[in-house]
Amino acid sequence: MKEVKKIVFEAGKILKKRYIDSFSVYEKEKGHLATDVDTEVEIYLKEKLYDLDSSIRFYGEDSKGSDNSDRRWIVDSLDGTANYIFGVSYFCTSIALECKGKITYSAVYNPISEEYFEASEYREGAFCNGQKISVSHKKLLHESKIVFGFSANYGNIERYHSEWTNIFDGCLKGLGLLSPAMNLCNVARGRTEAFIDFGCSMEGQAAGGYILEKAGGNVLNYDQSSWDHSIKGIIGMNDSMELKEM
Amino acid sequence: MKEVKKIVFEAGKILKKRYIDSFSVYEKEKGHLATDVDTEVEIYLKEKLYDLDSSIRFYGEDSKGSDNSDRRWIVDSLDGTANYIFGVSYFCTSIALECKGKITYSAVYNPISEEYFEASEYREGAFCNGQKISVSHKKLLHESKIVFGFSANYGNIERYHSEWTNIFDGCLKGLGLLSPAMNLCNVARGRTEAFIDFGCSMEGQAAGGYILEKAGGNVLNYDQSSWDHSIKGIIGMNDSMELKEM
Repeated sequence: MKEVKKIVFEAGKILKKRYIDSFSVYEKEKGHLATDVDTEVEIYLKEKLYDLDSSIRFYGEDSKGSDNSDRRWIVDSLDGTANYIFGVSYFCTSIALECKGKITYSAVYNPISEEYFEASEYREGAFCNGQKISVSHKKLLHESKIVFGFSANYGNIERYHSEWTNIFDGCLKGLGLLSPAMNLCNVARGRTEAFIDFGCSMEGQAAGGYILEKAGGNVLNYDQSSWDHSIKGIIGMNDSMELKEM
Repeated sequence: MKEVKKIVFEAGKILKKRYIDSFSVYEKEKGHLATDVDTEVEIYLKEKLYDLDSSIRFYGEDSKGSDNSDRRWIVDSLDGTANYIFGVSYFCTSIALECKGKITYSAVYNPISEEYFEASEYREGAFCNGQKISVSHKKLLHESKIVFGFSANYGNIERYHSEWTNIFDGCLKGLGLLSPAMNLCNVARGRTEAFIDFGCSMEGQAAGGYILEKAGGNVLNYDQSSWDHSIKGIIGMNDSMELKEM
């Protein structure tokens, strides 16, 4: 998958250049912002991935396409758009390859911090910049750092608080952070212990969720059933925490 | 102030190296985390700044020292500690020089995004990586991006919501972000329109507030009186927004 890595790095170059220079922002719907860079990078990725293998379909924010294909790329060209807009260098390009409904390969790249996460069915484990990564083994809530998926929305926080009060009150620290792909990769590398997001889209979770599983983590749907990346919402944890304790 | 820049960049190197390698986390008080890197970098800065001019006192998180001096460095060795811990590359070293109660020089450096902000009484304007920066001129709330100082605390959000509901409901987008120094610099460079933080410490606001003023922004205490960096809380805005509209 060296070719995919190359494509993702080129996409990152565009993201980085435009981040430093300039970009335009527009409001897709109330509270949901997008940039012209999202679109530019998605078009770039769609073309390059098609050149690589024209039999694999492409699913991105602006290209939902047909779903009745054996294989498709599930792509978030700019995951963490609001961070990008606000000058917070916590965003990435996220790409997953889905074969017959299962993820078999993932790449997540933050071009500012230069962190490249990757996992593949052909290789055991998950990797950050070529180094094998692993989830943490913390079991106790009061030692754990928990991330809540967040879209700058007071209602979000209110809902998390009503549904997960024991976490808010009991964990070492809880942060509401954008960029689900980066949040899942940070659980995968053991920086944090869990990520909970009731609204996470397929594009946001597919690649990061697979990397987390391959790093030894435990990934579930928001309703705690077995993980299906096509269902909205996700819970990603290390290998030791128990939901009932949370 | 080339010597100070060099010292700040060296501090950034330590922050970056430890961020990539490893660091230890401890709980200073409930919900307030610190790392061994905070302390290491503060000791480094204290020594180097003393070597530079031993007549200037040092005020940092672990070295509150005496206040009855004409000149002092006000230092946050790692502003945005929780981001650092959670793997979010939105943190910085923040240094302000205070002379007879007034800030006369500031430097803010994020070693991951490699953004270096600087302002001095001897030079008009404020700078990011040597380029002059300026606040945005957006006047209307529904076009504005607002940042709320946030320490991962539900009570914080609740208070902001009760005190600034019109902003929550009316702005283009509101985000709760850690790292007050970076938040103020992002208003200064025109990425965002305002930053509101009722709990911001002197170390968190001194350098960034000065840079924002020098970039043409409007800086106030949280109670809307004239800015005094020694008072907790801050409101930093571009040159066009009016608080009564907010």
